[in-house]
Amino acid sequence: MNRIPGYRRRFNEMAGTNIDRLAGISDGIFSVGMTLLVLGLALPTLSAHGTEGDLWRALLGLGPNVLVYTLSFMTLGIFWVGQGTQLNLLARSNRNYSWLQLVFLFAVTVVPFSTQLLAHFPTYRVALVEYWLNILLLGMTLLAGLQYGLRAHLFKEAEMPEVAPLMRGRIFIAQSLYAIATATCLVFPTWVSITLIFLVQLNYVVAPRIPILHRF
Amino acid sequence: MNRIPGYRRRFNEMAGTNIDRLAGISDGIFSVGMTLLVLGLALPTLSAHGTEGDLWRALLGLGPNVLVYTLSFMTLGIFWVGQGTQLNLLARSNRNYSWLQLVFLFAVTVVPFSTQLLAHFPTYRVALVEYWLNILLLGMTLLAGLQYGLRAHLFKEAEMPEVAPLMRGRIFIAQSLYAIATATCLVFPTWVSITLIFLVQLNYVVAPRIPILHRF
Amino acid sequence: MNRIPGYRRRFNEMAGTNIDRLAGISDGIFSVGMTLLVLGLALPTLSAHGTEGDLWRALLGLGPNVLVYTLSFMTLGIFWVGQGTQLNLLARSNRNYSWLQLVFLFAVTVVPFSTQLLAHFPTYRVALVEYWLNILLLGMTLLAGLQYGLRAHLFKEAEMPEVAPLMRGRIFIAQSLYAIATATCLVFPTWVSITLIFLVQLNYVVAPRIPILHRF
Amino acid sequence: MNRIPGYRRRFNEMAGTNIDRLAGISDGIFSVGMTLLVLGLALPTLSAHGTEGDLWRALLGLGPNVLVYTLSFMTLGIFWVGQGTQLNLLARSNRNYSWLQLVFLFAVTVVPFSTQLLAHFPTYRVALVEYWLNILLLGMTLLAGLQYGLRAHLFKEAEMPEVAPLMRGRIFIAQSLYAIATATCLVFPTWVSITLIFLVQLNYVVAPRIPILHRF
Repeated sequence: MNRIPGYRRRFNEMAGTNIDRLAGISDGIFSVGMTLLVLGLALPTLSAHGTEGDLWRALLGLGPNVLVYTLSFMTLGIFWVGQGTQLNLLARSNRNYSWLQLVFLFAVTVVPFSTQLLAHFPTYRVALVEYWLNILLLGMTLLAGLQYGLRAHLFKEAEMPEVAPLMRGRIFIAQSLYAIATATCLVFPTWVSITLIFLVQLNYVVAPRIPILHRF
Repeated sequence: MNRIPGYRRRFNEMAGTNIDRLAGISDGIFSVGMTLLVLGLALPTLSAHGTEGDLWRALLGLGPNVLVYTLSFMTLGIFWVGQGTQLNLLARSNRNYSWLQLVFLFAVTVVPFSTQLLAHFPTYRVALVEYWLNILLLGMTLLAGLQYGLRAHLFKEAEMPEVAPLMRGRIFIAQSLYAIATATCLVFPTWVSITLIFLVQLNYVVAPRIPILHRF
Repeated sequence: MNRIPGYRRRFNEMAGTNIDRLAGISDGIFSVGMTLLVLGLALPTLSAHGTEGDLWRALLGLGPNVLVYTLSFMTLGIFWVGQGTQLNLLARSNRNYSWLQLVFLFAVTVVPFSTQLLAHFPTYRVALVEYWLNILLLGMTLLAGLQYGLRAHLFKEAEMPEVAPLMRGRIFIAQSLYAIATATCLVFPTWVSITLIFLVQLNYVVAPRIPILHRF
Repeated sequence: MNRIPGYRRRFNEMAGTNIDRLAGISDGIFSVGMTLLVLGLALPTLSAHGTEGDLWRALLGLGPNVLVYTLSFMTLGIFWVGQGTQLNLLARSNRNYSWLQLVFLFAVTVVPFSTQLLAHFPTYRVALVEYWLNILLLGMTLLAGLQYGLRAHLFKEAEMPEVAPLMRGRIFIAQSLYAIATATCLVFPTWVSITLIFLVQLNYVVAPRIPILHRF
């Protein structure tokens, strides 16, 4: 009997099996990412003779930036809730699933960069598309985690036949809306796209009863 | 029987139900925020021929900044204790409650920005009001979490009839004191307001026996 | 019967009782602090025609800074182990104890500032004394937590009669060594003090068998 | 009977025994480190008349940096999985083991610095060697933890006779590959080494079935 392959199979069975550690590093990366977003808000600079009105106008001038940062906080919040829901359904984890989650977390760490890019270049379609690709990567890695987990029987079996199509459907609907919102930049100014993405996110945050968006 | 609404209700029942994850991301965001506060303390710069006395004076010059940072650390500490007390009373969580907490945590991530704004522009009423609005948002989202949690029966029922009015009263009293302290900037220089807010915070930290402030 | 004081006593009994949250925010603040230390290592800048030798010399020039950062990492590690030992002995927590720990964590968040100050001004006694005051505050708040916890019966009673004098003694010995090391800057250059503090820390890290330092 | 040595032995038995705290600070340091990596991606600057094409070219110009950051994220991910596997096998911890892990975590906090150094000086062998030394320190401290833990009987005994040689072998193979990849910089340009290290990391992430690399 060849023991080496058994050893190797064994290592892969041991590595990455700790769901608590996965939750721990996820909460850590999300919380650092969320806090760093607001750091991107540059403090206004005033001349020595600046007045209250100058500071007020400088803060108002941060408005568009604040919109982008709020957008990104909602994005991270939505995916934090989404990943948490998936992890909650796990009965066990393994090495491959942990790595799919690490790729998902890599996408999370890119959000502050994408946010600053969009906040500095809000009128550039390139910045908007980069932002959308980041959201797309978040959605695709979350979906990959779901699909792999199903195939590898990592989830609590009883609930999944009902739950899995729902989660898949949610990701497809949301990603379609993001794609449509982004595609409008081909015709309209980028602020239309940003506002549409903002509204899509807001819809998922407050979960209003618009049946067409929540059929899944 | 229409299964779609059932699916959807089901998703909302699953999402955001993990109190440990909520505690994890809260501790993460608070700890990053608290550590970043002190990063705002700019290192003094000295000329090549700087003396011990020069460095000493440069550090003393940081005094007002240190006051503002200590103030913000106390603010974050007070709200960390307050949120922890609320989360401790939870019997369960849900998606809406998690989002109310995420909005609360958004307000937490804004504190380093508000702090730096006030530290750089301590004589500007606009900076003071922005700081106060941040504290107001912290209090209001904490209150919203309490009220929603009561309505949605998320808390351990046995304790709440006695505890809920107490927590509500605490928030109202504290927020009234913050509002009064801030309003004094209409008549007095902003440093009076900052000092008053500092004293209010200190009162909640050391919890002295001043009956009028602790009736609730 | 007057119910108001009962309410208030009750709030103070509920607030800050969660040892897990206390451990969570402690690990968070320590880990952010430890990671930020190394961020203080400024990347070398080279001219366009820089050679391998230039970069090598630039990195060697970071040597003293690396020493200070290693020192601070050890400091944070020692106090992380020390606080962890104290929290491990808790049978329960309360609001006052949580606040003592928050003051301890405030001292932790100041360490990156003190470190950068000492790394930028290694020959200034003022920077050294500020660094020492930071270590003193860490030790004193840890001691205050121990003393308060004993008085308020927060610890597992069985172990404390034996353990408490040991922990107190450890803090006193260590703080005496730090004070002596710092005081040598009155006679010798500051690098002597920094090296002595480094050696004291190293002693606590590797725990060699020098009986005189480990009688307690 | 001499009680002092008993006291001291006792302190060392109590300190650093909490595996949860060790996991907590590890997740914290890894998550801050991983998030800070991407912060190193400097936002492009454009002139006032910059076009979509200019921004696109500026982002493409970040390509090599993105490669280095992805490399470092994989490095941290690999060692996070590796350390997690080791911690999962612990039956207990002690003070010495905690300190070995803290030295390992120190190496983790250095990764953002090494990454930025390599991203800024990708053609310098000195930067490459510094990066490799960082990976070497990560591997050696992980190995030291394993060896010490075996000697001090910290692991769940049943599994270790089979598992320990496997983990040791994995570290030796991986470190040999890193060393060979780095050594090629003596003959070839540094980008060859960087690409080789990248491929080695990718191999450990996706765990393909290349028998020669996975005999252990």
